[in-house]
Amino acid sequence: MISVAAALQAVLNTTQEFGVEQIPFLKSGGRVLKEAIYADRDFPPFHRVSMDGISIDYTAFKKGQRSFRIAGTQAAGSARLVLQDPKNCLEVMTGSVLPDNTNTVIRYEDITIKNGIAIVHVDSLQKGQNIHEKGKDRKVGDLLIAKNTKIAAAEIGVLATVGKSFVNVAKQPKIMIVSTGDELVDVGKIPQEHQIRRSNVFTLVSLLEKLNIASETAHLTDDKPILKSKIKIYLQEYDVLLFSGAVSKGKFDFLPEVFDELGVEKLFHKVAQRPGKPFWFGSTKNRDLVAKQPNNKCTIVFGFPGNPISTFVNCLAYFYPWYYNSVGMKVEQETAILSSAISFKPDLTYFLQVKLSTRFGHLVATPVLGNGSGDLASMIHADAFIQLPQGQTEFEEGAVFPVIRYR
Amino acid sequence: MISVAAALQAVLNTTQEFGVEQIPFLKSGGRVLKEAIYADRDFPPFHRVSMDGISIDYTAFKKGQRSFRIAGTQAAGSARLVLQDPKNCLEVMTGSVLPDNTNTVIRYEDITIKNGIAIVHVDSLQKGQNIHEKGKDRKVGDLLIAKNTKIAAAEIGVLATVGKSFVNVAKQPKIMIVSTGDELVDVGKIPQEHQIRRSNVFTLVSLLEKLNIASETAHLTDDKPILKSKIKIYLQEYDVLLFSGAVSKGKFDFLPEVFDELGVEKLFHKVAQRPGKPFWFGSTKNRDLVAKQPNNKCTIVFGFPGNPISTFVNCLAYFYPWYYNSVGMKVEQETAILSSAISFKPDLTYFLQVKLSTRFGHLVATPVLGNGSGDLASMIHADAFIQLPQGQTEFEEGAVFPVIRYR
Repeated sequence: MISVAAALQAVLNTTQEFGVEQIPFLKSGGRVLKEAIYADRDFPPFHRVSMDGISIDYTAFKKGQRSFRIAGTQAAGSARLVLQDPKNCLEVMTGSVLPDNTNTVIRYEDITIKNGIAIVHVDSLQKGQNIHEKGKDRKVGDLLIAKNTKIAAAEIGVLATVGKSFVNVAKQPKIMIVSTGDELVDVGKIPQEHQIRRSNVFTLVSLLEKLNIASETAHLTDDKPILKSKIKIYLQEYDVLLFSGAVSKGKFDFLPEVFDELGVEKLFHKVAQRPGKPFWFGSTKNRDLVAKQPNNKCTIVFGFPGNPISTFVNCLAYFYPWYYNSVGMKVEQETAILSSAISFKPDLTYFLQVKLSTRFGHLVATPVLGNGSGDLASMIHADAFIQLPQGQTEFEEGAVFPVIRYR
Repeated sequence: MISVAAALQAVLNTTQEFGVEQIPFLKSGGRVLKEAIYADRDFPPFHRVSMDGISIDYTAFKKGQRSFRIAGTQAAGSARLVLQDPKNCLEVMTGSVLPDNTNTVIRYEDITIKNGIAIVHVDSLQKGQNIHEKGKDRKVGDLLIAKNTKIAAAEIGVLATVGKSFVNVAKQPKIMIVSTGDELVDVGKIPQEHQIRRSNVFTLVSLLEKLNIASETAHLTDDKPILKSKIKIYLQEYDVLLFSGAVSKGKFDFLPEVFDELGVEKLFHKVAQRPGKPFWFGSTKNRDLVAKQPNNKCTIVFGFPGNPISTFVNCLAYFYPWYYNSVGMKVEQETAILSSAISFKPDLTYFLQVKLSTRFGHLVATPVLGNGSGDLASMIHADAFIQLPQGQTEFEEGAVFPVIRYR
């Protein structure tokens, strides 16, 4: 049995890249950018008028002139006009180009227009006011978005601005989620007394959806030859297999043997944690299988224990960091403050369900006590796990620990 | 000009429901549940074995018996067996039904099996150990998920468990996002000197996607008759119209007039905030138009100012709360601690871009200073807006204010 830290390190050591694909920019939300985005022109690309009003030559105003004949209108989206006579002005609109031979914009609030003449009410102006200078925000060639940024609304806007109709993003791993256990029936069925409905695979589908990964699901019966023949195919066709169940000590917990016989190297089995202890993790080393993978990649196998909360927390604590690392995404570790003392005797890392809230800028984690790893319904009232370290039994109110959010 | 609080209240007063639709449970992630979910049976539904091992009648052990003949195996997913002779035992697997006439499970770690006989190594057992009692987590009929819960992975698992293949969720509003401004060209085009590419509508599409709302987009030229005829149709066909631009004082800022002429009642125009001050907000009152809406609903019109950050922050500060309220979702207001002092002289609420991080359980907001409301690229380095209140000019390091996240 290894520690949570050692298990996480072993998982991260199997990080792999899945290549790059080009997709329409508007479909790229939530994906990881695999190219740097540079300014294609200065921003703003021209001296941009930033207030509706009139544009003048400041020298005229400085000399005492206060009324200006309006010689025309510079609309946003029209080519640059020229102020021919420096004693006149041009009406200008927010977003328009600053007309030539003008250098100062006076907003409508500070003028009165009558019979084509604008009369200025203010006694002082700043030369260059209400003009957003060309290149002030960014210069052509400036880095706007770094490679490996997770794309969200702000990035979508910038991609549009620089004309990136298509964008290079990290390809997602191809993932199969497999449930085992003869007690499981489909969601649409009425279970007999000794049966329950399949749920873990759907929880996993939803957790992967949060990462924008579309996954497939399958159910296999607790029959060793069937498991072996199906998993052999999955190892060839998928980058990652996520299993729920059949990794403990039961007579029908065939997965560890099947993985071994199919050449999946066990990297660890059992982690000093609760819930989720019987977690099995490995990677294909079988050269025949590897040869069939594109780019000779290995298939990574996460064998999560079958209890709902065990599967849930292990997906968050191990698969998520593996994925972030594989696509090159940096994710900051959050910490929270325990709202009440917790006592936990076993010499294990304890992933405790908590409800997070911010109080005066403090992130507070309130324990949500369920009935153990089978009590999925208790997860409804929580939104994160707080990670209480091994080798300690008393955790004080106000102490700070890492948290993993799932909402 | 009204305050941010008054503007938000006016927006929330137009909250409306869009009805309920039934969708497959696995497609319901991110949606708002519109029915209460109850336990369809006890959880666990039977006395559930929670360790792999053997199951015995505790009385035999108490009388001193330490070796038990294995009379059979109770697998998970098999109908309940009966222990015929209380001096024997049955092998039992995690997840299986507890066999009749047994009441205590001894895990494999505490026994040795030889020639069909299990020998117990431990001297004390607890009657009922390693059994997850029927109904211990939840009783049939218990409320598992309250109405108006936002569905995420935990809810997906619970919906599967209780057999809700289809689930009632809040219908999403039908939304059209309209850009105006003759300076705008398509993302795929090379702009002339005085032009820029359309970006705000795509930022809005992405912000709505975060709420699982699929929206439509259009671009209208700054031509009053065209604006009027198109918007008349949109008012009939959509629940919400989001505009970007043409709501300020410019000669071609026709939208307020057009809205008025089409019978959209102005609820406010201009809010005491930066950025985003020229925000126009209204709702249809025209009975002819209302009559054409399903359920006689009004169409809500958000006229956001055209600067990228103005549009962005107003979508988060007004449209998001309006949406949450409309679908019945409760969202907690987060607060964060300002990492450095900020001075802001205008008598306006200041929505300042910040980068959030947690340090020892404290949510710290570090200002990201851009070049004003046109500098979209500065949003890449931030992930939230901190809301600094009107009527105050100095904001101290360490002070706590509300934040609105956008990542």
